[in-house]
Amino acid sequence: MDFQAILDEIDDELRPRLDAVEGKVASYIPALARVSPRQFGIALRTCAGETAAAGDAAVPFSIQSMSKVFSLTLAIRALGEAMWDRIGREPSGSPFNSLVQLESERGIPRNPFINAGAIAVADRLVSQGDALAELLALLGRLCGEPIHVDAEVAQSEADTGFRNTALANFMKGFGTLDNDVAEVLDVYFHQCAIAMSCEQVASAAGYLCRDGRHPLAGTPVLSAAQTRRVNALMLTCGTYDAAGEFAFRIGLPCKSGVGGGIMAIVPDRLSLCVWSPALDATGNSWLGRQGLELFVTKTGLSVF
Amino acid sequence: MDFQAILDEIDDELRPRLDAVEGKVASYIPALARVSPRQFGIALRTCAGETAAAGDAAVPFSIQSMSKVFSLTLAIRALGEAMWDRIGREPSGSPFNSLVQLESERGIPRNPFINAGAIAVADRLVSQGDALAELLALLGRLCGEPIHVDAEVAQSEADTGFRNTALANFMKGFGTLDNDVAEVLDVYFHQCAIAMSCEQVASAAGYLCRDGRHPLAGTPVLSAAQTRRVNALMLTCGTYDAAGEFAFRIGLPCKSGVGGGIMAIVPDRLSLCVWSPALDATGNSWLGRQGLELFVTKTGLSVF
Amino acid sequence: MDFQAILDEIDDELRPRLDAVEGKVASYIPALARVSPRQFGIALRTCAGETAAAGDAAVPFSIQSMSKVFSLTLAIRALGEAMWDRIGREPSGSPFNSLVQLESERGIPRNPFINAGAIAVADRLVSQGDALAELLALLGRLCGEPIHVDAEVAQSEADTGFRNTALANFMKGFGTLDNDVAEVLDVYFHQCAIAMSCEQVASAAGYLCRDGRHPLAGTPVLSAAQTRRVNALMLTCGTYDAAGEFAFRIGLPCKSGVGGGIMAIVPDRLSLCVWSPALDATGNSWLGRQGLELFVTKTGLSVF
Amino acid sequence: MDFQAILDEIDDELRPRLDAVEGKVASYIPALARVSPRQFGIALRTCAGETAAAGDAAVPFSIQSMSKVFSLTLAIRALGEAMWDRIGREPSGSPFNSLVQLESERGIPRNPFINAGAIAVADRLVSQGDALAELLALLGRLCGEPIHVDAEVAQSEADTGFRNTALANFMKGFGTLDNDVAEVLDVYFHQCAIAMSCEQVASAAGYLCRDGRHPLAGTPVLSAAQTRRVNALMLTCGTYDAAGEFAFRIGLPCKSGVGGGIMAIVPDRLSLCVWSPALDATGNSWLGRQGLELFVTKTGLSVF
Repeated sequence: MDFQAILDEIDDELRPRLDAVEGKVASYIPALARVSPRQFGIALRTCAGETAAAGDAAVPFSIQSMSKVFSLTLAIRALGEAMWDRIGREPSGSPFNSLVQLESERGIPRNPFINAGAIAVADRLVSQGDALAELLALLGRLCGEPIHVDAEVAQSEADTGFRNTALANFMKGFGTLDNDVAEVLDVYFHQCAIAMSCEQVASAAGYLCRDGRHPLAGTPVLSAAQTRRVNALMLTCGTYDAAGEFAFRIGLPCKSGVGGGIMAIVPDRLSLCVWSPALDATGNSWLGRQGLELFVTKTGLSVF
Repeated sequence: MDFQAILDEIDDELRPRLDAVEGKVASYIPALARVSPRQFGIALRTCAGETAAAGDAAVPFSIQSMSKVFSLTLAIRALGEAMWDRIGREPSGSPFNSLVQLESERGIPRNPFINAGAIAVADRLVSQGDALAELLALLGRLCGEPIHVDAEVAQSEADTGFRNTALANFMKGFGTLDNDVAEVLDVYFHQCAIAMSCEQVASAAGYLCRDGRHPLAGTPVLSAAQTRRVNALMLTCGTYDAAGEFAFRIGLPCKSGVGGGIMAIVPDRLSLCVWSPALDATGNSWLGRQGLELFVTKTGLSVF
Repeated sequence: MDFQAILDEIDDELRPRLDAVEGKVASYIPALARVSPRQFGIALRTCAGETAAAGDAAVPFSIQSMSKVFSLTLAIRALGEAMWDRIGREPSGSPFNSLVQLESERGIPRNPFINAGAIAVADRLVSQGDALAELLALLGRLCGEPIHVDAEVAQSEADTGFRNTALANFMKGFGTLDNDVAEVLDVYFHQCAIAMSCEQVASAAGYLCRDGRHPLAGTPVLSAAQTRRVNALMLTCGTYDAAGEFAFRIGLPCKSGVGGGIMAIVPDRLSLCVWSPALDATGNSWLGRQGLELFVTKTGLSVF
Repeated sequence: MDFQAILDEIDDELRPRLDAVEGKVASYIPALARVSPRQFGIALRTCAGETAAAGDAAVPFSIQSMSKVFSLTLAIRALGEAMWDRIGREPSGSPFNSLVQLESERGIPRNPFINAGAIAVADRLVSQGDALAELLALLGRLCGEPIHVDAEVAQSEADTGFRNTALANFMKGFGTLDNDVAEVLDVYFHQCAIAMSCEQVASAAGYLCRDGRHPLAGTPVLSAAQTRRVNALMLTCGTYDAAGEFAFRIGLPCKSGVGGGIMAIVPDRLSLCVWSPALDATGNSWLGRQGLELFVTKTGLSVF
């Protein structure tokens, strides 16, 4: 397939819809609210190393919850199966930052992609060493270039992260966080504020479509079985409370972030990232989602 | 791959574990509680028409919730996208017969595979005609031989189906069932009591791995897009509150039933059914699940 | 105190407000929806036997949930402390017909005044004999004249009682109802459809302000301790999800019904009933509540 | 009534039960866990100024949640009806530190006696000035002697108060706290650590049985209507998830604390405090509750 042509078509087709984007911008933190919503980018990288990109694919944006895939990867590398001792693997059926299920399940988050789960993953990484430095180092190796945190966004996350502070203290009260709440949240707020472009994310996610082996990273990032499992989690839990809808309409493992990015994996074929800042009611990128739907329609790629 | 050899290996490897099966038998209805738990069967049918089977693959059993895939198929055929007007597509994060989510979501079931959702599907079918006859006719065409309801099981379902009666009345109170509660439940209790063997289920599910076209059925059962969506639903919602775990460990669209059967789809390759009556704590077949794990380990087949 | 003068004042003061009553009529069953909302009645009976009444105090109306006080009384008489084995005594913090708490508490209703609890009470009475006949006989003795069911309302309850049918089947599924669901619901639907006037209700409730002894009934209806406990339940659980607000503003044990009636007890002083069909958002009589507030303001009577 | 004789009888009757107290000590904070459970005290003060006391009635203990009555009193004095703008008055039907209801009700606590509600009250007081100093000054005036915070307990509360920190951040995230979370929690943790004896609490609560007028305080503490409402809240919400049971068995407005104290009000008669450190499963004083039951049995005092 001529992927560059396909991405160009998608960009051509969707860009006019940016005119309708007003009123849909994420506003929960000031630093994100300032991003212009009139941007759309898409990039992919095939297992064979081919790349394609269109639109604002080189513009860095806040990866937010997409960082959860990479922090989970680090935690699986460090802990193996023990990673799952106090973090579940089931869809939550509830909003991503809900405390209800956390209460009925005694501080054990449903999965690593809801906020509570990602905070629990950060806690495991803090026990292993300098979590943020490790995460940035991994991303740097995967992208072949240095990756940084947007300090202003990180500060904004910390200043307004009352719900996440509640989640962390709630788990600490149940005894399911090992480390100091402030230290764990500091990692979490910084990982959410990492800035990457579509091209970088598509590149970094490459190991997820190649059984855990990344072309630049050299040694395997994850085993083949571990990689399949991360993909399974992305498909069932990666897009907030719209995971069923994504599976139904797009049929690929995806992970979204409130920065407007969505990464998607076609196993044995390619890794892809789409970005557009305005969000729909489920917290997923409004135009990014349309871009993914177009991509699977045009290519016929789907795991189903 | 030599599928017959693989199924024989799985049967050889798992059959000794039947000695440990006591205490795990489903007992919620007397007619199911009487089934001997010391049975294990597995059968598959490839897209090319090849079949393989081992163990008790020819023994008929109560398909229970696996029937929900076929009733959903009928409803999609009849209603198209309108099927989804009052039935969601998201994992529930709650037990299969929970009323909590149904209450907070005003009588709209989360998906067609929880009991409330399947009762809502039955309601739509009742509006179309003789729902049970249609369902048996579809299964007969797909299997190439007549399929029947086990009348004793159906009666047992009706006699003890208080929770399902509650669910149906609850939806009726919200105005999300169109037909008479008793009539809808009669269809639902009978569809759960349909008896089929592993070989028959594997054959009937053939359209789900062939883009909706079944070799015996002649005309397409579903469109390619509809088929992908049913598979997506099976993966995210098909195995009660263990869907994440199934995606994580098995990585295939599956649908289980409390009769001990589990059907699984490998898109573009094959459809498969495994059966063993004893259930684990999640309500899925205890040994069937192990059979599926062995199958994916031995074959490397997975959508991820 | 000159209670007749006080009730006349209340009627004079509130009657003009009936002009604002439109749009507030209960409509969940047709037979209730037909009642003219432009009615207001109030009646009381002191421990010394004095009576007072104003407005539409002699007009019979559907007592609905107020019947739960009398069925509870019958059940306590029959079972004593064993009445409480499978029915709680705590406020629910949830709407009166919620299934959520019933699910998390395994079919044990929170208290006898939510619908599930009253259905459980009806179940206990069915085990004792002809529950409805016993209830009507008790009310007849307490009022000194025959009391009847409004057959049209009872039929309407049965025709539209999907939520209550759900609750009853839900409990039956948990094994916390002993008798046939249909038989229990038949009692419940009929008790809700009993028709009484404010004067009759005020008279019937007389034992609740006289330590369980009713002037007409002869022998004690309940013991003093049992009576105090029924009053405590009325105060904490008697007015749906507004019990705290009633305690806060009115400060008397009350029990309301969606027919628009509210009975109230001033221990050692009097029993009172107010009625006006239009309901507020909490399901309590809109003008009846104002009548009660006026009564306590004018008399200074309160348990606090 | 000879109250001194009655309290002596209660002490005589209950003291032997202290032998059975092991295993019931509260342990959620170390400073409380060290208190010897083999203590029981009871004290009362009538409206006429008569006092009576028995057992360990002069031993200071941590008043914990009983402080919520006094902080609420301060807030009502400062804000009047506006106090209730963002705090409800309904029983919660959930554990005292639950986040579930707070989530579904968007950060508005159900009532001022659950932890979230008391934290919200502390927030309002912080907006008024030096909340802790005001509270200690009020208690000092009511008791006629200085009242202090136990600094070790306050520190212990802060060190282990993860759940309360979660609640406060959760509300802050909903925008229902006005002040800095740390500042509000500092007040809350200190008010819980106030140390008072049964005699002091019984004296301090005197205004609640005298229509808001306290013999020592001079000017009215609350208006008569405000006082009735505080009592109503105590009865419906004052004893965690056992408020219905307390109303049912004891029938008095009560407020308990996990330090083992319970204060009770007999309107127009007396205020009372009982204390014994070991707790029952509902978090209320195990022996204190028995003491209250004995008191109402012996005196016949009850609001019902």
